[in-house]
Amino acid sequence: MNLPSIKKFPVIPFVAPSDYAHTLRWINALQQAMPHERILPLQSLSAEERAQCTVAIVANPDPDDLKSLPNLRWIHSVWAGVERLVDDLGASSLKIVRLVDPQLAETMAEAVLAWTLYLHRDMPAYAQQQMARRWHAQDYVRPQRKTVSLLGLGALGEAAARRLLGAGFQVSGWSRTQKNLSGVDCYSGSQGLQTMLNKTDILICLLPLTAETRELLNAMTLAYLPAHASLINFARGRIINDDDLRSALDAGRLQHAVLDVFATEPLPPDQWHWTHPKVTVLPHCSAPTDRETASQIVANNMRVYREHGRIPEHIDVQRGY
Amino acid sequence: MNLPSIKKFPVIPFVAPSDYAHTLRWINALQQAMPHERILPLQSLSAEERAQCTVAIVANPDPDDLKSLPNLRWIHSVWAGVERLVDDLGASSLKIVRLVDPQLAETMAEAVLAWTLYLHRDMPAYAQQQMARRWHAQDYVRPQRKTVSLLGLGALGEAAARRLLGAGFQVSGWSRTQKNLSGVDCYSGSQGLQTMLNKTDILICLLPLTAETRELLNAMTLAYLPAHASLINFARGRIINDDDLRSALDAGRLQHAVLDVFATEPLPPDQWHWTHPKVTVLPHCSAPTDRETASQIVANNMRVYREHGRIPEHIDVQRGY
Repeated sequence: MNLPSIKKFPVIPFVAPSDYAHTLRWINALQQAMPHERILPLQSLSAEERAQCTVAIVANPDPDDLKSLPNLRWIHSVWAGVERLVDDLGASSLKIVRLVDPQLAETMAEAVLAWTLYLHRDMPAYAQQQMARRWHAQDYVRPQRKTVSLLGLGALGEAAARRLLGAGFQVSGWSRTQKNLSGVDCYSGSQGLQTMLNKTDILICLLPLTAETRELLNAMTLAYLPAHASLINFARGRIINDDDLRSALDAGRLQHAVLDVFATEPLPPDQWHWTHPKVTVLPHCSAPTDRETASQIVANNMRVYREHGRIPEHIDVQRGY
Repeated sequence: MNLPSIKKFPVIPFVAPSDYAHTLRWINALQQAMPHERILPLQSLSAEERAQCTVAIVANPDPDDLKSLPNLRWIHSVWAGVERLVDDLGASSLKIVRLVDPQLAETMAEAVLAWTLYLHRDMPAYAQQQMARRWHAQDYVRPQRKTVSLLGLGALGEAAARRLLGAGFQVSGWSRTQKNLSGVDCYSGSQGLQTMLNKTDILICLLPLTAETRELLNAMTLAYLPAHASLINFARGRIINDDDLRSALDAGRLQHAVLDVFATEPLPPDQWHWTHPKVTVLPHCSAPTDRETASQIVANNMRVYREHGRIPEHIDVQRGY
């Protein structure tokens, strides 16, 4: 039996934190998308096999694990967010390719709409009323009279804005460089941020974590929001100053926070967020990667690399995204 | 000072259960929409004034209250659901006009989308995980692979179907008479009901309460649903057999129920729904009437009645809607 394509290339290690079931599901999907490659958990590779690897596929890996691959040229992440890798490997010559999955933008936009409606339709209040066996309809305000503001107007922000406009909300957006999106009040710069926050009912953070966005939401900027405003963070935990957020919630300067991301993940059990009545804790689930579509994208990039030696568009380490 | 228009017509009583703040907010909105009429709480009217009334505006009134108005010809409800009035007054010659507010269909369709996304994005599971301080992302299934089924394809069902299709779901619908809606798998009849329920992930009830729909959802029909299915009732409590629903939830034959309506409202504190981990209790808030738009509609109908003596389209008491 002739199996040239299986012999042709070195094995591709899959590098992820130790969750065996999770690793197997990923390897299964990746292997189906590229049957001519051999994809194996890093742990199962011999030193000789490791020495031959020039590329690895990673899912939020421990950067130390990658050091056992001496000839690695690039890594393909199946996560969109790679700032941990950039932080730890940025100074090296290793190239980092992040997942750019059009399905991911749609799933994130769906999450933005779902949790915006969660706040708009007072679901946190109704959950508390149920616990107290209290029957009381909250006053209803039409979406046409509410402003939902997006921090970040990249691919995710654009898809989210379209969904929110479709649901009838007034939509604003803020980005580093001024954008011009149909139907969206667009802002940029620190004055623009203040102007936008002043008229925001629901604020949604979709920004990448960079030196400029770290703790962008702090005591000063949170104070720009009206007291009835709510906040959703689907981006990165460190974009919010956690102590300032807690103070704003406790002082009644902010109505509710939906937090899907945290400075440390998984969120440790002793953190205040878990039990705060004005906080909804989510386990980083706003835009879960669809393994099938993601594996197809990785397979296409691998094929181009194998055939032409070309590495796909990768991270600008200086910008951080 | 000449105020002919204020003197011209008898006072219009506003009849609602005793909630003073609620009554005042309604009278204020109605009075603004028709400044030439005098609108007063029923309780404040003298016997002489009551005898002159031929029309009343009502918000879920105690039918007994209406008996103090001997010359009443018709009543205008600011609620869409009037089956309690039909039950109690159906045999009389009194004509019942229900609110038909296009805004109401949009608000209901928004609720359908909001609580469908609540179930689709596993918010009940995440709420329980937060209470247990458990960090675990549920498996994500794209909306294209889920079927949301509507019971009832009238104005509310049609508006809901459009929103659900826009969000990417597969949409089915069932109605008494066969409908044909673009993009919706339409069913009718008891065989059609079974076929639709068999393939339903999320079932949404928007039916009117009639002799045929009373306890339409019972042990037999709930058993047609797949075990992972969930249910939303935005219509009337008595469309579901409550004991059968509880058994299906307890036996794991149904994943979750969002209940906005109940056989007795407000839901009494001793009812099991309040504390069942698979039930979300809502206080009849899916489609709250918008007082402003509703008052405009009532004002238009009053103007036609005053000018031409014509009573707007009213309830077919035999059909019950």
